[in-house]
Formats: sequence, structure tokens, C-alpha cells
Amino acid sequence: MPSISLRGQDMPASPIRKLAPLAAQARAKGIKVFGLNIGQPDLPTPKEGLEVLKHIDRKVLEYSPSDGIPSLRGKLVEYYSRFDINVEANQIIVTTGGSEAVLLGFLSTLNPGDEIIIPEPAYANYVAFAKIAGAKIVGVPTKIENGFALPPVEEFEKRITPATKAILICNPNNPTGTVYTPEELSQIRDIVKKHDLFLFSDEVYREFCYSDSPVVSALQLEGIEDKVVVIDSVSKRYNECGIRIGCLVTRNADLYATVMKFCQARLSPPLIGQIVAEASIDAPESYITESIGEYRRRRDFLVNGLNKIPGIFSPMPMGAFYTVASLPVENAEEFCKWCLSEFSYEGKTVFMAPAAGFYSNPGMGLDQVRMAYVLKIEDLADALVVLEKALEAYPGTKR
Amino acid sequence: MPSISLRGQDMPASPIRKLAPLAAQARAKGIKVFGLNIGQPDLPTPKEGLEVLKHIDRKVLEYSPSDGIPSLRGKLVEYYSRFDINVEANQIIVTTGGSEAVLLGFLSTLNPGDEIIIPEPAYANYVAFAKIAGAKIVGVPTKIENGFALPPVEEFEKRITPATKAILICNPNNPTGTVYTPEELSQIRDIVKKHDLFLFSDEVYREFCYSDSPVVSALQLEGIEDKVVVIDSVSKRYNECGIRIGCLVTRNADLYATVMKFCQARLSPPLIGQIVAEASIDAPESYITESIGEYRRRRDFLVNGLNKIPGIFSPMPMGAFYTVASLPVENAEEFCKWCLSEFSYEGKTVFMAPAAGFYSNPGMGLDQVRMAYVLKIEDLADALVVLEKALEAYPGTKR
Repeated sequence: MPSISLRGQDMPASPIRKLAPLAAQARAKGIKVFGLNIGQPDLPTPKEGLEVLKHIDRKVLEYSPSDGIPSLRGKLVEYYSRFDINVEANQIIVTTGGSEAVLLGFLSTLNPGDEIIIPEPAYANYVAFAKIAGAKIVGVPTKIENGFALPPVEEFEKRITPATKAILICNPNNPTGTVYTPEELSQIRDIVKKHDLFLFSDEVYREFCYSDSPVVSALQLEGIEDKVVVIDSVSKRYNECGIRIGCLVTRNADLYATVMKFCQARLSPPLIGQIVAEASIDAPESYITESIGEYRRRRDFLVNGLNKIPGIFSPMPMGAFYTVASLPVENAEEFCKWCLSEFSYEGKTVFMAPAAGFYSNPGMGLDQVRMAYVLKIEDLADALVVLEKALEAYPGTKR
Repeated sequence: MPSISLRGQDMPASPIRKLAPLAAQARAKGIKVFGLNIGQPDLPTPKEGLEVLKHIDRKVLEYSPSDGIPSLRGKLVEYYSRFDINVEANQIIVTTGGSEAVLLGFLSTLNPGDEIIIPEPAYANYVAFAKIAGAKIVGVPTKIENGFALPPVEEFEKRITPATKAILICNPNNPTGTVYTPEELSQIRDIVKKHDLFLFSDEVYREFCYSDSPVVSALQLEGIEDKVVVIDSVSKRYNECGIRIGCLVTRNADLYATVMKFCQARLSPPLIGQIVAEASIDAPESYITESIGEYRRRRDFLVNGLNKIPGIFSPMPMGAFYTVASLPVENAEEFCKWCLSEFSYEGKTVFMAPAAGFYSNPGMGLDQVRMAYVLKIEDLADALVVLEKALEAYPGTKR
């Protein structure tokens, strides 16, 4: 049999999805599984987005332009202007989810052997996309004790080598929920400028912010306009992860032209998703404010509940809809598997994402899990009870 | 400014799309441009596919499974059984168009430096996806004089090196329209088996066949079951290129598991497109037979018309909806640009894809163009007149 590629052999299984078969087995046994593993919101998609589907009167569902349909790109310009982010349509490329924006951004900037510095824990799939580009992720560890705040500038500086090509931040952060302060972003700006790096900024959780000060976009940082690549997506904002619509935004014309060559090779982003996304951006402001209010209540409920369980610690995340918590176990992955395969309480169990898969440095985050608060409060209440009972019953719990 | 990746700099512009800005300028000047460049059919999407959109009663447009929604995978099993192709749902991965199936297939099998042998002219975007994988395309030239028939087995054998990892065929062929005979496929099977290679078979035009003998699928070749990777797509078959739904089919469980790791990294294929695709597969047989009948009439009209123009030669393609024709010019790309930027006849011009971009060997196909017969016959008639007038007026026409 011909051999699998080395990159394929090395490709890590997604920490978010790799335990899914165990969850499916549990469900097949009739166990109710609370899915805290994945950022799949249960809130409704805006009715503007759902309604437009019913009125698509096209006779042919044809290719769209490789950079996206012009009306959606125009709508995105308007969307960004709501946040005082000034970009033009020809600086926006519509992609198949934020995922493709990351992949094409990496492919267009990173050579095999190049290094990209990322504060971690970090969204696990960056590793997969870096591996496709042949690049190496250099993780800057952040600490659960101080809410995963951005490390001081020296921690970045000391990891910069001649192979360093970019820094990536995710703000608000998946998986930690941390929102970076204007001062922290200024420091990043200075490093990026000094060392002539690209700055990738994944801002898909822009509007999920629970503090009074708004999230600062990398597109608002002065003096590095030609270095910034913003990754965005309508998936989380409008609870429409399945339509696979995101975008890449850059003011760097050379980079834009290069990304477009990759975009032409894959022909076009999904047409119907683009139509839904465009309509969703017109959802009233109340749609987002109600969503954010609901997530804030869930966050408070979950995080306060977690911290009441003996041995668990979770910082209070200020953005996105995740938290990373430490559990009183040696190996959270084993515990997560055990919850799905050997445990249930009153016919229920929990599905959490082991956080070690969010670190590039081996041995880090072994006792941590990522939880997405994408369930109703009554389900979160049940999940907290199940988690507490699981830790009481688990042979490996530190007591 | 930080530099673009070398892969990005080297990435060829799509021969199908790179002249699109010139076409847009021509249209802006009020010129009617006949788009023969791209395989964007004008026939309607099946009403089953369009109708299902109006009845999506989901409240949340959520992620689908990374390998696709189970009901679509089941429907694809049934679809393949219509052609006596026996595969199981767990041998099918739904992808974001056939494009993603090619990319993920390459990433999962080809290491940097590996070689993949492809008869050419070949679909240009294979080059882009091979470049992403760091692999090298080794073209086996085919000849317009004999209808781009598969070259004899020795032509493949002499290109096999220790770095050869796979052979790729596209059957029916884009861009040439050639359909490979059972004997030709047997030869390919023998080479693949002897040298333990992967065989990628792009079969998106399976049903577009104008001869009496059906297209043989690589999945029907005996003795290489673990080596075959079929690329497929609903785009052309159901005139729904924009929904971006394709699939990768393999009976090799290791390869399947590897492709799935990449699929998990990009989360899921487009949900709404999958719903449309599933419904489209239930279109009545008359939908396809009428489409094929229409394409056959267009093929006959276009190819016979081309061969009546002095200096043009086109073989009669037996499948797909393209033909590659040679023109009486030194450099067809210059002629194509000239048609879009400097010529019009009665307010009309033609947009063709220069065929040199479909060859990896430099200097080949310089006088050839690919044309897609995706326009109504009356438009094809106009396009033929315009093309003849253009060749009469073009300073570079050989006389």
C-alpha cells in the first residue's frame, strides 16, 4: 500500500472533535451528553438570514466571484465601519469560513521552516494550518492564574529568530476568553513594526465582549497597516457556523493579490452562505445585544459554578464564549474520555475538550479543559452537577 | 514590508480566471462578452435542489459533521450504485467542492518533492494544489492530433522515478473532453499496481459522456482497491457549482482517517449546499438525459463550426463540456487578451481560456485555447462568427 504523507501522519487530531466518536457511543446508549466541547451555539440564526433562503429565485446556483459576491463585500465594509474600522471592499476577500482565511493567509506568507509566534493555549486548528504551510508554531505560554493575560513583551522578543515571520493573536481569545487591552495591543504593534513581521489577528469573537471597553481591532493599530491580516467569520456572531462564510482583510495589496491566486484555484466561496451572511449582517442591533446578554448570564453561571466545585479553577473570561478551567486530575484527556465512556449520572454526562491540544509546548495544560458555554442555563446547571459527580467518582481525582 | 511566501509568489494565476478583469472592462464598455472560458453551465439547477431551500425549517444553521451529513453520504452510496460502483458511506467524505477533495487528497499522500504524473493538458488547478503540498507535477503530453488519447504505457513508465507517488487522471477529461477506454484504464491500473502508486481519478464529468459505452470509474478497477482516490462533485452534474459540494471516495481506511484529520481542522463542509446536493441527487433521470442531450447538440454545433474556420482544429470530444482547439496564432494568450481588450464585432467579443496554462511543460499548447460549451446554441453561433472575424482582423493570424 502506498504510504500516507508525513504531514498527514503528523497532523494532530482535533482536540475539539477527536472524542466525538465516544460521545456518539454514549448517545447511542441513551445517555444525554452535554456538548461543551465545541463552539456550536444553540441560539437561533437571525430570522433575516433564514428568511432570505426562502426567497432565492435564481435558476442556477452558480459560481460566485473568487473574492466573494460584491454586495456581501460592500456590506462587510459597512459592518466594519460600525466599529470605526475603515476598510475598502478591495481589501476584503470572502472565504469558506474563518478556517480558510487562516489557511490561505498562512500559505501566502509562511515558507516551510518559518516560525509564527502565538500566545497559547491557542485555537488548535492553527497548528493544522501551519503544518500544511510547513511552518512552525512557537507558543508563548500564558498563565491561568492571571486570566491568560498577554505575556510581557520580553516573552515575545526572546522567541524571535531569523525564521520568525509573523505573530498571531486571537482577540477575544479562543479558548481562554481573554480580551487584550489597548496597552497589550500597542506592545504587539511595536514588536511587529520593529521586526517587520505579519500580524494575524483572529477577531471572529469581536462582539462577544463582557467589559465596557470595546475590543480593539488590529486594523486600528497605526503604523503597521501593511502588516496586518485580520481573520473574521459570521459563524459565531450570527449562529450560522454551518454556512461556512468568513473573510480575510488586509490593506497589503501584494498579499491580497497572492491570497487571490489561491482563491481562484478553489474557484469560489459558498454562494448560498454568502446570501445568508449578507442578510444576517442586517439583523437588528437587538439580535446581538440579546445574544451577548445571554452569553454573559451563561458565563457568570458556568464560571461561578465551576469555581464552587472542589479542585476546579476557572478565570472569569471577558470575551468569546469559552473558558479554560483546571481540574483536579493529572490528565484531563483521560478524564474526558472516562466521562464519555465509563460514567454517567442520572443518564447524563459531559463532553469537554482536553486543553493540552491547545498548546504547542508538550506537557502544558494537561489538567485543563476548554468548555464552551453554548448551552441553556438549565443544561449548564445539569452539566455542572454531572461534572461534580464525575470528579467524585473518578479514580484519578486528586483529593 | 514582510515578504510574500515563495509558494505564493510561484503560484500561477488561474488560466481560467486571470483574464477576467479584461472581460469585466470589456463589459463595462458595453461589449457583449461570450464567456467560453469557464465551466459555468447556464442550464437550470434541478428544481428539487432549488425547492428544498424554501423549506429549510432549521432554527440554527449549525456545523455539520466534518465528513458531511449522514443522509447525504447515504444518498451518495445510492447514487454510485446506479453506476455499479459499490462503496460504503464510511468510504465517502463530503468536501467543499471537488477542489477541496483534490487538495486534501494531495496533502494526505504527497510529501514535498514527491512527483505526481498527470496526462496533459490538465485541469490547471491541480498545479495549485500540488504546489500547496510541495509536490511536483510531471506531465505526460497528449496530442491534439489523436484527440488527446491516453499515451502508451511506456510514456508513463519512463517518467516514473523513486519520487513518483501517484498518477492522476481526469475522466471524462477537463480540458480535452477525452473519455478513456476500458483498455486504457487497464493499462493505468497495471502501472499503479506494479509501482505501488496512488491513483487519483477526477470523475466529476462522469455522466457527461457522448458515446454508447459508459465511463469506467477507477473504483471499478480490480486489484488496486486500496490505491484509488476518486474526486467527485455535484457542481457540473446538477448545475450548482456555487454550492461548493464535492466528495472524496477511497476504500483505503488509513488514507480516509488521514483526510478526516484535515477535514476536522476545517470543521465542516457547507451545510446548506449539502441539503441542496442531497435533494438534487433525487432529480429525475430526465434531468440528466436532457442536459446531456443539450450538451451533445452544443458540442456538435461548436466543434463542427470551429473546424469550418480557416486554421482552427478541434477534435470531437466524447465527454465533459470542453474542447481544446488549436488556433492559427503563435500565442493564444495574446490573442485571447486582444479579443477582450482591442476587438469587438457588432458589439460582441469572445472570452476563451488560453490552454498553455493547462500544461506543466513550458512551451506546450501555446496555440491552443480551451472552450466550454456552456452557452445556448444561438450564443455559440454568434461566438463562432465573432471568433472568425477576430482571426481575420488579428495582426498575428497565420495566413
